[in-house]
Amino acid sequence: MEYVARVAAETLHAFTREVFERAGFSPQHAADGADVLLWASRRGVDTHGVRNLKLIYLRMLEEGRINPNAIFSVEHETPVSARVDGDGGLGLAAACWAMRLAMDKAEQSGMAFVTMRNSYHYGAAGYYPAMALSRDMIGISLTGRFSGQGVEIGVLPTFGSKPMFSTNPIAVAFPTQTEAPWVLDMATSIAPYNRVILHRENGLPVLPQWGLTAEGEPTADALLMQKMWPLGGDRAHGGHKGYGLSMLVATMCAVLSGGWDDGHDGDETAFNGYRQTGDSHFFGAIRIDAFRPVESFKRGMDAMIQALHAAPKAQGLDRIYVAGEIEHETEQKRSRDGIPLTAATVADLREVAEKYGMELEI
Amino acid sequence: MEYVARVAAETLHAFTREVFERAGFSPQHAADGADVLLWASRRGVDTHGVRNLKLIYLRMLEEGRINPNAIFSVEHETPVSARVDGDGGLGLAAACWAMRLAMDKAEQSGMAFVTMRNSYHYGAAGYYPAMALSRDMIGISLTGRFSGQGVEIGVLPTFGSKPMFSTNPIAVAFPTQTEAPWVLDMATSIAPYNRVILHRENGLPVLPQWGLTAEGEPTADALLMQKMWPLGGDRAHGGHKGYGLSMLVATMCAVLSGGWDDGHDGDETAFNGYRQTGDSHFFGAIRIDAFRPVESFKRGMDAMIQALHAAPKAQGLDRIYVAGEIEHETEQKRSRDGIPLTAATVADLREVAEKYGMELEI
Repeated sequence: MEYVARVAAETLHAFTREVFERAGFSPQHAADGADVLLWASRRGVDTHGVRNLKLIYLRMLEEGRINPNAIFSVEHETPVSARVDGDGGLGLAAACWAMRLAMDKAEQSGMAFVTMRNSYHYGAAGYYPAMALSRDMIGISLTGRFSGQGVEIGVLPTFGSKPMFSTNPIAVAFPTQTEAPWVLDMATSIAPYNRVILHRENGLPVLPQWGLTAEGEPTADALLMQKMWPLGGDRAHGGHKGYGLSMLVATMCAVLSGGWDDGHDGDETAFNGYRQTGDSHFFGAIRIDAFRPVESFKRGMDAMIQALHAAPKAQGLDRIYVAGEIEHETEQKRSRDGIPLTAATVADLREVAEKYGMELEI
Repeated sequence: MEYVARVAAETLHAFTREVFERAGFSPQHAADGADVLLWASRRGVDTHGVRNLKLIYLRMLEEGRINPNAIFSVEHETPVSARVDGDGGLGLAAACWAMRLAMDKAEQSGMAFVTMRNSYHYGAAGYYPAMALSRDMIGISLTGRFSGQGVEIGVLPTFGSKPMFSTNPIAVAFPTQTEAPWVLDMATSIAPYNRVILHRENGLPVLPQWGLTAEGEPTADALLMQKMWPLGGDRAHGGHKGYGLSMLVATMCAVLSGGWDDGHDGDETAFNGYRQTGDSHFFGAIRIDAFRPVESFKRGMDAMIQALHAAPKAQGLDRIYVAGEIEHETEQKRSRDGIPLTAATVADLREVAEKYGMELEI
């Protein structure tokens, strides 16, 4: 990736928050939105950082596809669960609200899950489980879309020729003691489609193993790739497992919440009449001390990570990483040195600044 | 696979149960053990069926590695959780006991998780979540091993040259209305090592994409393969995601239960002194109606499955399957026609029959 500028993380955070507010979101939604985008930008997850401010969120708002006045609500709940409605609002804020609900319930009950329908793109899936770390909980987040009629761009089911799923990520975080927090944040496809777009923007090729063209041919051209393989690839390489995980995510998010068969409950026309409204998510929070003392768990995590660091390396490689470790190091570096930006993102941010009458020195 | 005989499922079930009893297990443990093995054999999961009766369970018992008089116990619990001890017993029975505990707690509390240490090989991971289907719950089971010093045979971490994990499977089941129950049961490696052994026994090659030799070279020889790739394969194909899932499973099973750092809690020697005793598992049960009405959920599952069945197929293929569907059809067929057996399994079962003074007509 070629970066052309660098801006302090705090500056970009304040800018993003202010932009969301001037665009019409409440102070809470704007603050949550900025937190999620800057978390990704700090951690080097550029596909889900400030580059999406205009590209996804402001564009969708202008197209009337995000409700700036959304009121998130609980449709059904128990002490350990909730089914909630995102009211078509800013997914970043809806997801923060839902994750807080899961953690507050878990605080009381030991653990809790929240499934949410009618939300929108929630950014970096790893942000929400990472919220649970400081509360000594295991955090979980999933976001899933399923299209009964298929889509042009998305993830193929094994033996299928039309994408039916989004890249339906799984994110889980475990607290540690001295090691970097363990944060897994993975699309259930080989590569997330956002990465294809990022490569396209920057004139880079993609790996032909990631996916196929509209005609179902392998390609290294980021402009042509649109049918993504599930994790594993084809059947011989275990792609049915990635496909299974994608459907698992779609179920916990979109079936458990009613998001996929929304409004057709009991309708005998079945899937032909179904449309998934917006995005559906799933959040979980589990108190470590519902199982064993927190300090013991953290020592066990540290020891497992240290054992992996000490393990023999493959030829030509000098380091074994665990989930979230590279991002943790990038976070420390970028918090100190600033967030590097590509030419495309700089242009977008300047346009946004002008539109909302703000200053942004880049 | 070349089969040489066929035996009625009920006959094999009664035989297996009786063998477990004569070998010294309690009637409950023997019944549970037979249920799990025959479930796999009926469903065509031959790697985890009656072929393992002698190969794994009776051999381990004779070697003194399984405690026939195990008493499973709760070390810590809340209304939604438990950490339990398998007492080195028959993993098949220990896992049934732990899954029942999770379901009973979920019945009361809405959901529950149980993490278990000091158990042993629990067979087909999918059996335990499938137990939850008739109770209108989502079922989850994981089993995980982590070796701080590495092992000769197992799954590689990304960038590592020594296996550190077992094939640490993930299994989840969702109830349906008219479609086959959705049962995902997947190793977090490209292929489970049991499949390599099965191919070896039957003189079949393996796919070179599954793993490497002891020296780290690709191989199609089932006799030589012993370092398995995590799901995804190498880094470029997303293998870091399979590695992440493997560590996720190891954590929920072996860190949360204390199984991996067993007896070293607070020991500053850290991982060098740690040894994972036996296997560790994780079980979950989630009431559907903690989120939405059961019938609505099942209709949504059916509709999703029907949409996948109706989706466009890849060239040369005429069917798209969902998780557990092939196994469900095999189960119906084998329950009617009997369980087909390979020559190796027939020889093993005859030897077992002779040893325990039993009749088995094959």
